Amino acid sequence: MDNLGLVFISETVGTAMLLLLGGGVVANAILKGTKGNGGGWLLINFGWGLAVFTGVLVSVYSGAQINPAVTLGLIVNGLMEGATIPWGAYAVSLVGQMLGAFIGATLMWVVYKDHIDAEEDPGKKLGIFSTGPEIRNYGLNFVTEVIATFVLVFAILSFGLAGNEVSTFTGLAVALIVISIGASLGGPTGYAINPARDLGPRIAHAILPIKGKGSSDWSYSWVPVFGPLLGGALAGVLAPVLLIAAA
Amino acid sequence: MDNLGLVFISETVGTAMLLLLGGGVVANAILKGTKGNGGGWLLINFGWGLAVFTGVLVSVYSGAQINPAVTLGLIVNGLMEGATIPWGAYAVSLVGQMLGAFIGATLMWVVYKDHIDAEEDPGKKLGIFSTGPEIRNYGLNFVTEVIATFVLVFAILSFGLAGNEVSTFTGLAVALIVISIGASLGGPTGYAINPARDLGPRIAHAILPIKGKGSSDWSYSWVPVFGPLLGGALAGVLAPVLLIAAA
Amino acid sequence: MDNLGLVFISETVGTAMLLLLGGGVVANAILKGTKGNGGGWLLINFGWGLAVFTGVLVSVYSGAQINPAVTLGLIVNGLMEGATIPWGAYAVSLVGQMLGAFIGATLMWVVYKDHIDAEEDPGKKLGIFSTGPEIRNYGLNFVTEVIATFVLVFAILSFGLAGNEVSTFTGLAVALIVISIGASLGGPTGYAINPARDLGPRIAHAILPIKGKGSSDWSYSWVPVFGPLLGGALAGVLAPVLLIAAA
Amino acid sequence: MDNLGLVFISETVGTAMLLLLGGGVVANAILKGTKGNGGGWLLINFGWGLAVFTGVLVSVYSGAQINPAVTLGLIVNGLMEGATIPWGAYAVSLVGQMLGAFIGATLMWVVYKDHIDAEEDPGKKLGIFSTGPEIRNYGLNFVTEVIATFVLVFAILSFGLAGNEVSTFTGLAVALIVISIGASLGGPTGYAINPARDLGPRIAHAILPIKGKGSSDWSYSWVPVFGPLLGGALAGVLAPVLLIAAA
Repeated sequence: MDNLGLVFISETVGTAMLLLLGGGVVANAILKGTKGNGGGWLLINFGWGLAVFTGVLVSVYSGAQINPAVTLGLIVNGLMEGATIPWGAYAVSLVGQMLGAFIGATLMWVVYKDHIDAEEDPGKKLGIFSTGPEIRNYGLNFVTEVIATFVLVFAILSFGLAGNEVSTFTGLAVALIVISIGASLGGPTGYAINPARDLGPRIAHAILPIKGKGSSDWSYSWVPVFGPLLGGALAGVLAPVLLIAAA
Repeated sequence: MDNLGLVFISETVGTAMLLLLGGGVVANAILKGTKGNGGGWLLINFGWGLAVFTGVLVSVYSGAQINPAVTLGLIVNGLMEGATIPWGAYAVSLVGQMLGAFIGATLMWVVYKDHIDAEEDPGKKLGIFSTGPEIRNYGLNFVTEVIATFVLVFAILSFGLAGNEVSTFTGLAVALIVISIGASLGGPTGYAINPARDLGPRIAHAILPIKGKGSSDWSYSWVPVFGPLLGGALAGVLAPVLLIAAA
Repeated sequence: MDNLGLVFISETVGTAMLLLLGGGVVANAILKGTKGNGGGWLLINFGWGLAVFTGVLVSVYSGAQINPAVTLGLIVNGLMEGATIPWGAYAVSLVGQMLGAFIGATLMWVVYKDHIDAEEDPGKKLGIFSTGPEIRNYGLNFVTEVIATFVLVFAILSFGLAGNEVSTFTGLAVALIVISIGASLGGPTGYAINPARDLGPRIAHAILPIKGKGSSDWSYSWVPVFGPLLGGALAGVLAPVLLIAAA
Repeated sequence: MDNLGLVFISETVGTAMLLLLGGGVVANAILKGTKGNGGGWLLINFGWGLAVFTGVLVSVYSGAQINPAVTLGLIVNGLMEGATIPWGAYAVSLVGQMLGAFIGATLMWVVYKDHIDAEEDPGKKLGIFSTGPEIRNYGLNFVTEVIATFVLVFAILSFGLAGNEVSTFTGLAVALIVISIGASLGGPTGYAINPARDLGPRIAHAILPIKGKGSSDWSYSWVPVFGPLLGGALAGVLAPVLLIAAA
């Protein structure tokens, strides 16, 4: 991970893939007239999980972080364990993640443009870009994102302990964890669990000339950014205490 | 597995993860106003299976038993085969499993608090914590839990025979077995197949200040405790007779 | 695979597991008042696939044939390639498969007894034991079972060519093939693709004192026995011609 | 891959398997009176993904391309990297893919003949053979197929970079990518992402004596041929720039 330019490309490509596919499955499940219309939560869960799988595959050079909460968790975990932190690589990773999320959301908009135009509900148009809560309660929504992201980063950090036993299907394992989080903890807020996944597309929603769009709901936008960051950092702190290598 | 304190932490963390995610998917599928509302049995089955997957990942040190019926099956199987039983490790495992199940159910309650409060049906509020039968018949419900747990522990014990061929995806294999049991044998009682999974959250249901909660249904509570224990013990007895290592 | 008694136990146990779980998922999906009621075809497909997965796990000693069509395919394929056929092992395997299917279906009946009793439709009561066509046309139903079983045995025979590359997840691969066949070719006849899977439970349906049961539909019973056998034999003949080892 | 005859057989068999199972799942999900009727988009997505899995298993000799867009992507990628292109093998692969797709679609027609005959809607009869857009807009439909196929071929090309880490489950990985594309990008056009998958069955639809069939919709037929080819070629061009081997 020495070449910062390659790290940047790798994270940009992986996060763009994540948002193209992740935004796409929501569009397919909820927009008017699509083949997947009415596909339900399980379709969305599997679609997002497999978006992570595919994103990881094309982003191996940089370790397929594709999520600032994961990057922060790695930093905090490294600091806790006294490791040398590749600050430069992590910095360009964060920029690549934001750029990639914007690019991926834009490509998704192109793919579903006619269906977005045909949809009347502006809430659904925002829903294919960014998350929003079912019951708005900033405190509890924030806590939900903290806990859900803690699960993600904590489980990912367990791979280092299990060693090469899981190396042949790490991407699949992360995908399954994300499906699990969506199925189990996504009910209240739609599991952003990734600041880039939520903020990048929200910016795209605000900027792109989307027909009939409504508010980008900026008042909620801090929850899916800072909740995941805190959850990732907590996982980085607690992993050295609570995760124990196989005996 | 020498350090009893680490075994305790490992089983507590793994079982807490199991119940946070396992309780969560039921909450998401049945509570009012969640994004997964109406997601159905397949969502619940996959959610529970992946809860096991994630719970196993974070509990490798202690062998990821996260279930007293599995622990008992290992003890009985070990006695049958004349192995030395790590009594201390198993004892602290059981305590960790009960504590972890309580913690996980409590965290689930926090995540879904607003949706639990908004739900009118006290039966659903209990249903996200503990199992209950569709047709109450203590004898047959008990037998169902015995058979379902026998399948779980018997299949897990087969890994030892298949040797390192399945070692790279043991967690996934256990998850698939649990999905299978839920899909196939969960119809009558909701497949507790784990005393800690049922009793820990039932205690949490009784203790926590859950708005509008009803009975914790203690009259049924012995079924998902003793049924799984008997099923696990039977698997430990029969595995040496019925499971044969690859030729 | 020298010990015929162990082969017999292994195939009996594996096929019993297959039918307990396979019959169970249909019962859960269609019987009155179960938790999985209305779960649909995808639940049934996954349930049957994972029933195969679990059945394979507990039947490794005998190669986890658990299906006379697979056994016949292996015999024909061996004859085509001039291999020595373990006739004794295959003979006891077939007996074990039939016995195991009967045992598994009986255990399934115990698990779902109250729900079977509560169900009014005798067609559904038979449907949880054996297969039946949606449009009765013996010729075309037979051809459908031939083609579907050809796919199963042909794909299984490809593992030998791929060598140890798939050895770590052979059980999963077979499960995925069975899910594929159910999803794609199960529409007309319900994909028996296994004579023991259909005939053993049909005998159980005829013998067991099932409340309110109707006909065991013996007039159709030859289709899911001889169709799969022909399909398996054809796969054994064509595999040496059409399957080619990796270059 | 020296023997062109064996390459031809391998690609024919793999693509026939792909279309038998891929066409079959759509037939099962949408035709009148099938067991999977109403199974929905998730059933179709999993069915197509597992059709790819099974097709790959039986086509290992030729590298299981079973898709002209993949073959073209490999050619362009090889040219970009200065590799020697096995022109002969690729040429016979393309012929085998077209022939196999026709054979597979014909076998699917046999399996579902009674249900195709019973179905009144000619649109559904075409839908089990070839793809069609929900909102007809040749330009945007074309772009959708370009992007979706780019994802497929780009992700497949990443395996070369990840090396032997994914070799034990390459077929599964491709299946998961295809499920991902279907769930996320299949909404507008039904994700042909494979010229042979669409054109071969469309020719079969035109030629076979299908009862009550309507138009084969040739006016749309160029989109799912040239869109995927362009997407595959783009992936071949961009992979050397955007995919970076693990550090």
